[in-house]
Amino acid sequence: MAVSALAGLAAQLPDGVVVTDPDILASYRHDRAADPAAGMPLAVVRPTRTEEVQTVLRWASANRVAVVPRGAGTGLSGGATAVDGGIVLSTEKMRDITVDPVTRTAVVQPGLLNAEVKKAVAEHGLWYPPDPSSDEICSIGGNIATNAGGLCCVKYGVTTDYVLGMQVVLADGTAVRLGGPRLKDVAGLSLTKLFVGSEGTLGVVTEVTLRLLPPQPSACTVVATFDSVEAAAGAVVTITGRIRPSMLEFMDAVSINAVEDKLRMGLDRSAAAMMVAASDDRGPAGAEDAEYMARVFTEAGAKECFSTSDPAEGEAFVAARRFAIPAVEAKGSLLLEDVGVPLPALAELVGGVAKIAADRDLVISVIAHAGDGNTHPLIVFDPADAAMTERAEKAFGEIMDLAVSLGGTITGEHGVGRLKKPWLAGQLGPEAMELNRRIKAALDPDGILNPGAVI
Amino acid sequence: MAVSALAGLAAQLPDGVVVTDPDILASYRHDRAADPAAGMPLAVVRPTRTEEVQTVLRWASANRVAVVPRGAGTGLSGGATAVDGGIVLSTEKMRDITVDPVTRTAVVQPGLLNAEVKKAVAEHGLWYPPDPSSDEICSIGGNIATNAGGLCCVKYGVTTDYVLGMQVVLADGTAVRLGGPRLKDVAGLSLTKLFVGSEGTLGVVTEVTLRLLPPQPSACTVVATFDSVEAAAGAVVTITGRIRPSMLEFMDAVSINAVEDKLRMGLDRSAAAMMVAASDDRGPAGAEDAEYMARVFTEAGAKECFSTSDPAEGEAFVAARRFAIPAVEAKGSLLLEDVGVPLPALAELVGGVAKIAADRDLVISVIAHAGDGNTHPLIVFDPADAAMTERAEKAFGEIMDLAVSLGGTITGEHGVGRLKKPWLAGQLGPEAMELNRRIKAALDPDGILNPGAVI
Repeated sequence: MAVSALAGLAAQLPDGVVVTDPDILASYRHDRAADPAAGMPLAVVRPTRTEEVQTVLRWASANRVAVVPRGAGTGLSGGATAVDGGIVLSTEKMRDITVDPVTRTAVVQPGLLNAEVKKAVAEHGLWYPPDPSSDEICSIGGNIATNAGGLCCVKYGVTTDYVLGMQVVLADGTAVRLGGPRLKDVAGLSLTKLFVGSEGTLGVVTEVTLRLLPPQPSACTVVATFDSVEAAAGAVVTITGRIRPSMLEFMDAVSINAVEDKLRMGLDRSAAAMMVAASDDRGPAGAEDAEYMARVFTEAGAKECFSTSDPAEGEAFVAARRFAIPAVEAKGSLLLEDVGVPLPALAELVGGVAKIAADRDLVISVIAHAGDGNTHPLIVFDPADAAMTERAEKAFGEIMDLAVSLGGTITGEHGVGRLKKPWLAGQLGPEAMELNRRIKAALDPDGILNPGAVI
Repeated sequence: MAVSALAGLAAQLPDGVVVTDPDILASYRHDRAADPAAGMPLAVVRPTRTEEVQTVLRWASANRVAVVPRGAGTGLSGGATAVDGGIVLSTEKMRDITVDPVTRTAVVQPGLLNAEVKKAVAEHGLWYPPDPSSDEICSIGGNIATNAGGLCCVKYGVTTDYVLGMQVVLADGTAVRLGGPRLKDVAGLSLTKLFVGSEGTLGVVTEVTLRLLPPQPSACTVVATFDSVEAAAGAVVTITGRIRPSMLEFMDAVSINAVEDKLRMGLDRSAAAMMVAASDDRGPAGAEDAEYMARVFTEAGAKECFSTSDPAEGEAFVAARRFAIPAVEAKGSLLLEDVGVPLPALAELVGGVAKIAADRDLVISVIAHAGDGNTHPLIVFDPADAAMTERAEKAFGEIMDLAVSLGGTITGEHGVGRLKKPWLAGQLGPEAMELNRRIKAALDPDGILNPGAVI
């Protein structure tokens, strides 16, 4: 049935939009979470226009076929894992952008990469702040789906803070316009905000209107190393209570050494923690902030502390921080965590992760957007070693349990997807879970959108 | 039936929570929108705790009694207009606040006034940015309900940008905790954001967790007067494309003269427009911004331009701007508009309002959060003059139609309430309206929460 119905869908769409080549299908089964439970899709559909997305969803609703929306496939929680007999709806070919420097907005299709959006708006002297470390490979549609964060979010906020409006196609194929290039608009419920972070479970976003800022001023950067995680974490709380850094990043001993193995920058291999902090406040204010952060780091017991107002020099340390994930990945496969806690619990979280690593006989490196309390424990394992893989999976859950026990979240910016779904109820509680289900049922009563993800 | 049922409710609550004194009931029929269609409530309920709100809503659901949530009653769109035979649920006695300087958050009950929140957090060296002009009289719960804005929002964003979590009681009495003191959290749908701006139609917020910032730096202020609205509006677009002012406010000739009538500050009575702009970037950057804005104003043809880095001197002009509504109110009753447009349409909107005023033989003054494209046309009328009142009401609708025709919104920060409801569909279109209705039905299937408001 489904295959003959599929011919009916293909007939309604331009040639090449519906793909059934088995090799291609196989390449769309996973995102970067590499979920071993991924199914085999019936087809991959790569539309270029909103109307084509509507056609797909009308067809899927009529035929009760599951649709997994997919951006660039860089998701880390299995939000785009294919399901057996379903459609993977990839937005990769929807790549238009129109920048309006007068309203300081850009209207963007979801398939454009984050870095491409940044580049296109920079040509008009403007800036799109959210900066996931994966900005060169992740799509703006995926960023919307997960409400992605990044390094500058400690000062500039996350994706949702920059989404003024969107066009979204609902499960039944209805296209809805929400919001627009208006900086303040409270007419009706805050539906734009509801779709941001909904991980493809409520609709397929086919166009977004992004708010842009004037260019980011150049930053003063401070790097400090510490003998203890607690000292570094304590400094974070002191700093954010007083000033607004534009970056406040943490690396632990494992990631410092992994980066040093690769980049040979002369990082202190004996340090327990390294902070990379910056202030982009203009003029002497940025230097004052840097001086203040250096003083706080020193008073917190920093082993070494280095400040620079040279953007290239500062960028080298930011690059080191951004390189931490690939560097640790060189040691084995990674289960990449994304837990967050209220700021004062940061040291306890990092300490707890170290204990889990010791108990499970694993290497777990922690890097963190420390100023947001959002950490990325990187669990290193060898997928060929079944016992180790099992220990890694156990540790993955234990880290989430730990974060929740500290008043934290199982995901700060990557999303719940399929990998973290078993832990969602433990964080939200039954009432909030039920509220999630009610909204889902109201918008997608047949449950065809991204079934198995989140809720 | 309802009255005997009411005795059942009163029996479940502490003495004094349920009020039925007719004089008191009468005082809760209206908010500041003074909707003539206001009904007479069965009772006013003034709970102090979440559990009491749950009791009220469980009872209301069981008895199918309408509940109108009410903050401080300062709403301008009739969002808290009482309905016949319903309950007014006032949060005015829920006034607790706990500030946590370490996480830079405050947990606040909804009845606290905006200015009281600001004061309480300032005692811990922190700042809650959203600053509606009514900050001395409006409650934080009302701010959440309307997603209130203010003067500093052009740089610092609106209420939703500062709400990290909440406790909300649903129509059936279920209390749900959403979010919390975590700066990044994408676990589950963005429900916190959905409740912000929902105007009491989806639930009653009984507690919010607010994100706080370090104190606002002192600002440099620039005041300029113009012979034409277009010149002032053009300067706004130039400025916001290049820098991030912390305030960018507009007053027209009517409001300049109304303020001057009262304050005798020596404002230029012959000016067609006055801009009050500020930058709070620290150190010389703020002064540089002020110099830049002064240059833009001058090049745009400003008649006079005055800059100051003296906070008291700057504050006098901000106070003049804040005083514009009471000053214009001295001329008669006001219908207070809240339309917004994309920035380039600002001059056209203001010009169109002047045309409506001329056509309808009315005085309409326009003040605006110009940097956000959010304007407040103030329609002056005499309620004792039936023909004039009718012309004012016609103008009220025509201004919304004009804003929508310019790609704008019928409300930037005050909410739809009951007064603007007839124009909502014209802005949102049938698909978005249907989506609003689906969410409402999912959360409040019996429609007991704020019936007649918004949707």
